[in-house]
Amino acid sequence: MDWPKGVEGLSYGGDYNPEQWPEEVWDDDVMLMREAGVNLVSVGVFSWARLEPREGEYDFGWLDTVLDKLHAGGIAVNLATPTASPPPWFTLAHPEALNTRPDGVRQVHGSRDTYDICAPAYREASRAIAAKLAERYAEHPALAMWHVHNEYGSSTFSEHAERAFRVWLQEKYSTLDALNAAWWGSFWSQHYGEWEQILAPRATQYLSNPAHELDFKRFTSDAMLEHFKEQREILRAANPDIPITTNFVFGQWVPVDPWKWASEVDLVAFDSYPSAPDERAEQQVALHADLCRSWAGGGDWLLMEQAAGTLHSKDGRIAKSPGRMARHSMIHISRGSKGAMFFQWRAGRGGAEQWHSALLPHAGKNTRVFREVTEFGNTLPGIAHTVAEPVETDVAILWSPESWWATGGGAHLPGPVDYLENVAQIHRVLRDRGVVADFAAPEGDLSKYKTVIAPTTYVLSRAGAENLRWFTAGGGRLVASYLTGAVDEHCQVWLDGYLGGMTDLFGIRVTEHLPQPAGEPRALWNFGAAERFCELVELRGAQCVTQYATGDVIENQPAVTVNPFGEGEAWYVSCKLVDDAWDRLFEELKLSGPGRPGLDVVDRGPWRFIINHTEREAQVGNVIVPAGSWAVDGKR
Amino acid sequence: MDWPKGVEGLSYGGDYNPEQWPEEVWDDDVMLMREAGVNLVSVGVFSWARLEPREGEYDFGWLDTVLDKLHAGGIAVNLATPTASPPPWFTLAHPEALNTRPDGVRQVHGSRDTYDICAPAYREASRAIAAKLAERYAEHPALAMWHVHNEYGSSTFSEHAERAFRVWLQEKYSTLDALNAAWWGSFWSQHYGEWEQILAPRATQYLSNPAHELDFKRFTSDAMLEHFKEQREILRAANPDIPITTNFVFGQWVPVDPWKWASEVDLVAFDSYPSAPDERAEQQVALHADLCRSWAGGGDWLLMEQAAGTLHSKDGRIAKSPGRMARHSMIHISRGSKGAMFFQWRAGRGGAEQWHSALLPHAGKNTRVFREVTEFGNTLPGIAHTVAEPVETDVAILWSPESWWATGGGAHLPGPVDYLENVAQIHRVLRDRGVVADFAAPEGDLSKYKTVIAPTTYVLSRAGAENLRWFTAGGGRLVASYLTGAVDEHCQVWLDGYLGGMTDLFGIRVTEHLPQPAGEPRALWNFGAAERFCELVELRGAQCVTQYATGDVIENQPAVTVNPFGEGEAWYVSCKLVDDAWDRLFEELKLSGPGRPGLDVVDRGPWRFIINHTEREAQVGNVIVPAGSWAVDGKR
Amino acid sequence: MDWPKGVEGLSYGGDYNPEQWPEEVWDDDVMLMREAGVNLVSVGVFSWARLEPREGEYDFGWLDTVLDKLHAGGIAVNLATPTASPPPWFTLAHPEALNTRPDGVRQVHGSRDTYDICAPAYREASRAIAAKLAERYAEHPALAMWHVHNEYGSSTFSEHAERAFRVWLQEKYSTLDALNAAWWGSFWSQHYGEWEQILAPRATQYLSNPAHELDFKRFTSDAMLEHFKEQREILRAANPDIPITTNFVFGQWVPVDPWKWASEVDLVAFDSYPSAPDERAEQQVALHADLCRSWAGGGDWLLMEQAAGTLHSKDGRIAKSPGRMARHSMIHISRGSKGAMFFQWRAGRGGAEQWHSALLPHAGKNTRVFREVTEFGNTLPGIAHTVAEPVETDVAILWSPESWWATGGGAHLPGPVDYLENVAQIHRVLRDRGVVADFAAPEGDLSKYKTVIAPTTYVLSRAGAENLRWFTAGGGRLVASYLTGAVDEHCQVWLDGYLGGMTDLFGIRVTEHLPQPAGEPRALWNFGAAERFCELVELRGAQCVTQYATGDVIENQPAVTVNPFGEGEAWYVSCKLVDDAWDRLFEELKLSGPGRPGLDVVDRGPWRFIINHTEREAQVGNVIVPAGSWAVDGKR
Repeated sequence: MDWPKGVEGLSYGGDYNPEQWPEEVWDDDVMLMREAGVNLVSVGVFSWARLEPREGEYDFGWLDTVLDKLHAGGIAVNLATPTASPPPWFTLAHPEALNTRPDGVRQVHGSRDTYDICAPAYREASRAIAAKLAERYAEHPALAMWHVHNEYGSSTFSEHAERAFRVWLQEKYSTLDALNAAWWGSFWSQHYGEWEQILAPRATQYLSNPAHELDFKRFTSDAMLEHFKEQREILRAANPDIPITTNFVFGQWVPVDPWKWASEVDLVAFDSYPSAPDERAEQQVALHADLCRSWAGGGDWLLMEQAAGTLHSKDGRIAKSPGRMARHSMIHISRGSKGAMFFQWRAGRGGAEQWHSALLPHAGKNTRVFREVTEFGNTLPGIAHTVAEPVETDVAILWSPESWWATGGGAHLPGPVDYLENVAQIHRVLRDRGVVADFAAPEGDLSKYKTVIAPTTYVLSRAGAENLRWFTAGGGRLVASYLTGAVDEHCQVWLDGYLGGMTDLFGIRVTEHLPQPAGEPRALWNFGAAERFCELVELRGAQCVTQYATGDVIENQPAVTVNPFGEGEAWYVSCKLVDDAWDRLFEELKLSGPGRPGLDVVDRGPWRFIINHTEREAQVGNVIVPAGSWAVDGKR
Repeated sequence: MDWPKGVEGLSYGGDYNPEQWPEEVWDDDVMLMREAGVNLVSVGVFSWARLEPREGEYDFGWLDTVLDKLHAGGIAVNLATPTASPPPWFTLAHPEALNTRPDGVRQVHGSRDTYDICAPAYREASRAIAAKLAERYAEHPALAMWHVHNEYGSSTFSEHAERAFRVWLQEKYSTLDALNAAWWGSFWSQHYGEWEQILAPRATQYLSNPAHELDFKRFTSDAMLEHFKEQREILRAANPDIPITTNFVFGQWVPVDPWKWASEVDLVAFDSYPSAPDERAEQQVALHADLCRSWAGGGDWLLMEQAAGTLHSKDGRIAKSPGRMARHSMIHISRGSKGAMFFQWRAGRGGAEQWHSALLPHAGKNTRVFREVTEFGNTLPGIAHTVAEPVETDVAILWSPESWWATGGGAHLPGPVDYLENVAQIHRVLRDRGVVADFAAPEGDLSKYKTVIAPTTYVLSRAGAENLRWFTAGGGRLVASYLTGAVDEHCQVWLDGYLGGMTDLFGIRVTEHLPQPAGEPRALWNFGAAERFCELVELRGAQCVTQYATGDVIENQPAVTVNPFGEGEAWYVSCKLVDDAWDRLFEELKLSGPGRPGLDVVDRGPWRFIINHTEREAQVGNVIVPAGSWAVDGKR
Repeated sequence: MDWPKGVEGLSYGGDYNPEQWPEEVWDDDVMLMREAGVNLVSVGVFSWARLEPREGEYDFGWLDTVLDKLHAGGIAVNLATPTASPPPWFTLAHPEALNTRPDGVRQVHGSRDTYDICAPAYREASRAIAAKLAERYAEHPALAMWHVHNEYGSSTFSEHAERAFRVWLQEKYSTLDALNAAWWGSFWSQHYGEWEQILAPRATQYLSNPAHELDFKRFTSDAMLEHFKEQREILRAANPDIPITTNFVFGQWVPVDPWKWASEVDLVAFDSYPSAPDERAEQQVALHADLCRSWAGGGDWLLMEQAAGTLHSKDGRIAKSPGRMARHSMIHISRGSKGAMFFQWRAGRGGAEQWHSALLPHAGKNTRVFREVTEFGNTLPGIAHTVAEPVETDVAILWSPESWWATGGGAHLPGPVDYLENVAQIHRVLRDRGVVADFAAPEGDLSKYKTVIAPTTYVLSRAGAENLRWFTAGGGRLVASYLTGAVDEHCQVWLDGYLGGMTDLFGIRVTEHLPQPAGEPRALWNFGAAERFCELVELRGAQCVTQYATGDVIENQPAVTVNPFGEGEAWYVSCKLVDDAWDRLFEELKLSGPGRPGLDVVDRGPWRFIINHTEREAQVGNVIVPAGSWAVDGKR
């Protein structure tokens, strides 16, 4: 499917909320958008209260005008269904359809996302407003794409959710015996005697059951997907030529499995908000881009939101220095995004996000930010022809949302585990070595990769284990790190050596987890160091690549091993290595590419994208890229 | 109005809770009070359960006795209405009249302040007990003042509050259209279609609306004031000669606007509890005193509570070293307080505050603390004649409670802002330069000042902006720091350059906020440094006083500017300066006085108050003040 | 009573949960238990849902099989009542019988301990399941002991609790006047006019009443004890020869008074989970052991749970290095435990505690942990004869659970107090000096001790004060540290000098508490230093042992004093001393024994237990103990 329908070249623009401004501003908006090179805007994302001021009473006049003005100005529209923020009347009319916290508190309007994704009344209201929009705008010439909802992610622990959860569980397990077995119900007297006894993981006295928690996350992902699909079918029916998407938000708290969702959207869209002030921001942005490309699986994807002027970090926000917005955008575009979109076009005067950075700042067009936005926007048409070629790589990193969820906050784990950091570390070290990597689902198609890296893939299903075995047997090189395959899809421990049961594949058994105190690194012979987590490994045929040089119990025990298996080989890293040690290992594995630290280099067909994040001019081949700038070269 | 009626000279004493002690202690109390120089005590602050043991059943016998004994001993009484702590029977009789948290939990008795300020039943019970006290004691010869309630400050998010909030909003905005516009309701679908849809800012899913939050704070301030006025009218009617007050507590969480309240009380009373172990405690005390004097606007004010023996800090409490209690008291008295009162007279044996310091410690009269209390109390009559003269100054600092509230905890701001610290910093640097400053409301009368300093006055209303413009045009010197005038009275951003819209006044536009990472100060040319927050300034006629020497985007851009305007001039400081830089600027502005670091010097008519907080003897003119001591000199 | 009935020598084993595993594993379990030297297992601790899958519907078949297999294998059974985890059906059948948080939220099943200890329905269900077990297994030959419930400790703030609390209070105080006086009800208007007005200490607005809190803790301890006794009577009636116990858990949050409970169990059982990674873990384990022995008062006691392979600390868990499990076990055994038990036998595959360490790890028998378990288990029979002799000492440290509770988290205290650390500090310094100490209740029998140390015994009742006075008068040496006797049994301050009113005993008055800033130690003359807390002491006959060398107010004031009293003497330490200063004081008091830092030495009759925690070989007398090892010597 052609997407955003009618947009030529790269998409450039952002969320546009004209309903927040008087009509006299709208013409100015269109004029400035054209000046900035904007060709696509997301309209109506939170407009429900303006579109349906009273239940069943609609007002589309303003939106008609807006779409007509945009179309006249040559700006395409990514039109949103507004279901991410029900209006105040919804709370009063359907109090039982509000989001419910684990402690039973219903969250009222006054923010956004105050709905219960499982409540029939909310579902019905969502379908109704989507149908009205479809009816009125499906054929509007400005319409380029549908943007369903916004950043799916709000869990609810209501009775509606519990009722739907039970249905979902019955479909999955058929019998209570199967569920009790899967959830290890005999521990702490959690055997269920009736389906009605199963609740959401609500406020309880002490530690909760990890299998229960994980299934509830999966269920919530599916419930949200159902909500999405209900709207999608309505929109599709109205005009099958308009692509339909929703924007993914990234966080451990988000119960959305992108691998399952990606095939349901016409293009994968993503909101990229890095959370570090320094070069880790660029690392995160590159990670986001590679994840999106991989979720899209060769299909289209788009950076749907980023902030033009600021970065958020633990310390609060900081400004993006000159050129950084363009470089972040180019990280996405070079790695496959079909454009660079932002939240938002015009900075809001009021509301909770009045200080969210925008393309057009509060101080107007005579500002540094708008000048950069305009300069970059007018550069994009010049490179539109270079992005037709695919991004190709033979290295994949496993991305397991379930491992991320299962190692989250409240979990009782064998030691300190930061799943995202472990994935990001692999990605970062590879990027610094110039390697562009894909991500892959543990159960996904690995046939096109030579090397697959599984960082702390804690949850490894039977199917995932089989997949890795098949990949290796067929000639692949598998590199797994500690705690990979610790538990199966039911969060049950893989007995007799962990490793997803694949002790033969790796030629070892892991016999004990040995978390280490903070601040006490453990040296490896000729191989850098480990920190916080080691495992005791028993060799069962594998070769020992290096051993621990220090440490109670582990001294002189295997730290990194390799085992030939079928046509391939399986490496195992039994600890949390520091960056240098991974770099050392990747040197051994001969993984390297044209980039280097501070320099993104991505080759696509005849085109080479170079992004220089450093404060010095950089040369790659014959191309010289000024400090803080980027280039696309056709003569690699 | 004469206040505390019948108390000659300076008031000295504290909260007195005889109902906690057997009657035989009462005579001892009066004797020791006389020994300590006590002439005023606050009685009955939390006595409701003893005055009305069952609903409608009263027992005043014990209070009759106490008042008679005090009167016989020459001690005047500041008689409290006990409404800050309803008795246990109230919870059971009126469960719907309890304070409700944002998550809907009603807070039961077992502490203090367990009531819903908006509940009709609580209002009625408050009026009833106030009327009983008025009826019985309005003519009692011991009665010197009424003390209504205690430390107003407990918010409630109940349906009572929501009902009253809606009425308040209707009075303020008249129409929903006006409210929706003021609250920027189109963001996140928050347009209200009916008044009934407006709730308190209860538990919601994500960020709340800042205009909603700010109006709810204002409403709560007004609701509490209404409660105060209801009691005041009853007490006034019973004897119009008795002054009426209530004691203010200081904290960002306190929804009380002192500028609005000050005109409703006969004298401003204040509870001063500094929260630092070191010299910042003295800075805070001086800040408290200058705030109180300014709120009182030339009228009377009184330090109503402080702790005799201890200071609280983040680290827990520490003891006040010898002389420190007297010096803190003298900071207040020298800056205008009509005395020094304490919580509490006799240290309690039990209850939640059993370890709160008191004038008479647990160990009795043979203690260091009581000896200091007695010594200081007997000194006060000797200086009573010196306090008739006013404290005068031509420098004012703006104090904006709304800016404090709006930059509080949960708010989504353009960068790190600590409003109180920014105000305190100006006050501190001026104090160290010997300058006594007033505080002024942004919309208040500025006509008597030559210099007005507006530190980060984030919320600046249209009226406030007009006031500053008028002040400057008329010859005043205005000094504003970063984020001043960022938003208006509806928390809406001032567009096209911030600054409360007064880009012409300052001769600049602020085009971008540039929060900076912690630990990375930005040098100014010849002017110290900034930290955490800078702004990008575009000159539009102003002169540049100094520029940033370092920093992305800001290097060589204006940091401090000055612009002549009418008869006056407007300075702008576009960043968070460090103390030294403010000192440098005040040197430029020729702001200095007779005090110096560690030494408070306040001149009032012919009298000079000198307080030496240092560990060395200090000389000011001909007067030598021993280390840790103070003096009042008549020959300045 | 003989205990664990039929177990010869030392008990060795752990919680055994066969219901989590298929039956084919059970034979393997018994075989491996025998291999490891296991002779006792705790069965059924959380098995309610398997024993009573539906209300009133029982299934004992699996348990019959398990007990028979164990008996056949020579393994005795400590059979648990499963009441610590009601099944899911209980939540739905008796929603009002769920644990209620202070904010009113009822905690549903999904974890453990989801019941309201005061709910009649829960009590009834508990008695019923206990009766069924008693009926079926009281005469089973495998049955060695009953294990009632598990780790009593979950508070509830329900209406059931409030109703029972009122009855408890009526029994204690008889009249509301007495209660109001005891609770200092006149503060903050907390006088109760009817019993019905008394609530649990539920969510309230601000600080709560410490006497209310303390009585609620005592009540909860008694309510839980009642629940225990109800089951005990049922089990006892079925077979009076089987000993009955429950396992204590250790924590400030646990409302269980071990001094009151110890006499109600046939042996004291304890779960010992140290919380530090370094040598403080051994200190904690020794503290646990000495507490247990003391609670048992010469009776039997048993280490019921510990973790075989891991330690928990703030930083997460770390592995126990080789030998450490055995040394921890030996700390307990040498100090009196009749064995070493663990949670749990076989590491669980699923559930909240799937990563809890076990005797038999996930990786099976070919693991370091199981090898150590087996080696140690097979050593125990060889020392069984050595433990018949009692542990004897003439030094006792007071252990006051009420002081721990009363100085907990939310309390408003005169300064920073960490009760447990202060007790642990005394125990640690004595242990490092080779002294094995008992613990004693403040009101307990002190007649067998020469020295009694009272570290910060904040709550000191009238009876406790009398007890200490009697002890000293009779020739004892009492050493008390700061804040001892600050308040009485009603949390009311001891007036006129604190010290539990015993100013004559100590020959001093404490006139002021002087908390000190963190990081500013106060030197004592020739005696180390104090930190965080000092007191101002007035000599009234005592000798000054040393004075403060620095510090506001305290400089040159008494820091440590001693006063002859009757036949004995009373020492007072008016501050928080650092370890070295306590060591110096104990040197003065001639308290020393055969152990030294890193080396536990415990003499029992002719036997000497030596545990070497250091990394070097150690010699004690003629005995040489290898690094990290232990020995029992008969030729002391």
